[in-house]
Amino acid sequence: MEIIKKLEWRYAVKKFNENIVLPDAKIEAIKEAFNLTATSYGLQPIKMVVVKNKALQQQLAVSSYNQQQVAQASHVLVLCRETTINADYIANYFKRVQQVRGTSNDILDPFKQQLIGSFSKKTSDEVAQWATNQAYLILGNLLTVCAATEIDACPMEGFIPAEYDKLLGLQKLNLASVLTMPIGIRADDDVFATFKKVRKETVESVIEIA
Amino acid sequence: MEIIKKLEWRYAVKKFNENIVLPDAKIEAIKEAFNLTATSYGLQPIKMVVVKNKALQQQLAVSSYNQQQVAQASHVLVLCRETTINADYIANYFKRVQQVRGTSNDILDPFKQQLIGSFSKKTSDEVAQWATNQAYLILGNLLTVCAATEIDACPMEGFIPAEYDKLLGLQKLNLASVLTMPIGIRADDDVFATFKKVRKETVESVIEIA
Repeated sequence: MEIIKKLEWRYAVKKFNENIVLPDAKIEAIKEAFNLTATSYGLQPIKMVVVKNKALQQQLAVSSYNQQQVAQASHVLVLCRETTINADYIANYFKRVQQVRGTSNDILDPFKQQLIGSFSKKTSDEVAQWATNQAYLILGNLLTVCAATEIDACPMEGFIPAEYDKLLGLQKLNLASVLTMPIGIRADDDVFATFKKVRKETVESVIEIA
Repeated sequence: MEIIKKLEWRYAVKKFNENIVLPDAKIEAIKEAFNLTATSYGLQPIKMVVVKNKALQQQLAVSSYNQQQVAQASHVLVLCRETTINADYIANYFKRVQQVRGTSNDILDPFKQQLIGSFSKKTSDEVAQWATNQAYLILGNLLTVCAATEIDACPMEGFIPAEYDKLLGLQKLNLASVLTMPIGIRADDDVFATFKKVRKETVESVIEIA
């Protein structure tokens, strides 16, 4: 199948072609795909920062243990969790449901109250972890959409979130960086593009119960 | 773009057509896609259980707060984290790299020792969280691959992991369930298929820095 071929084509890029800028249409598709990702309860606790600024990318690269992909990439996508998931945030979601679908408050209210109650019982660490999980889910979607649209990418956990937060001014937006992913087009001389994929055998990683 | 249309087509299915069994070719593609997902350090700490057994699905549905999709679905995918990520596990990964790529031990050893050292410093909760993150990343990939291949799906956090672990005999496989996702084909009368998607405006959820 086409999508499997695309997943085989993708790899974690070690060197981007610095001279290629991704066309706006591809960036728009990525933004759309990001926004369409399923999230827990539909609460969308993640925002995406799209950086296309070489000076800033240089600084972000320093805060990414000098991984040069961040500096070379056409764009850098930073997935950031909302740091204030409270009753107001949840109520806003239900307001949106009502506006989009015209669902009555009578129907929405019990679930809304239940959700607000459930989140009020979580510690701030638990809420942060819940949001972080959603960032990973979104990354999984974006990686596949990048592959499907022939965008090269390098997903990264290896960076210093506090420094990203500072460089991107995230704190005053009530955001905290979780994951980063430079995207662009692979350099012709990135030898990693030619390496065989290392994976367990499918029979080793999949258990079937019929 | 085609992939965006597919993401718009997908929704969290509330009712599957119980009479439709997904063809083997589609299940094989899902297994392949699962196995091709990028994971942190390439360590693949997640296995996938594929359940196609109505009696077992009935039991899993009970352990999913009676969400009937689990019972109705053609197949149920359960993403499970490895509970024993230790020096042996990591060493096995490097053995595989050597076998697949023929990379010499001289090149692999420093990174291998660094990774083993880094994991030995993590608490078991930290390792579990790290693996859980990877399950979410895989779910994000699978959701998109399902959409691309016209498989309907319902990703779920709402189930009782301890009961799944028991029903699937996961403990003796050193596995613990993290996420579950029934897949199949939507029922003709699932009204949720007709609901408008509720999402923030893209301008609200994406921040551009140029």
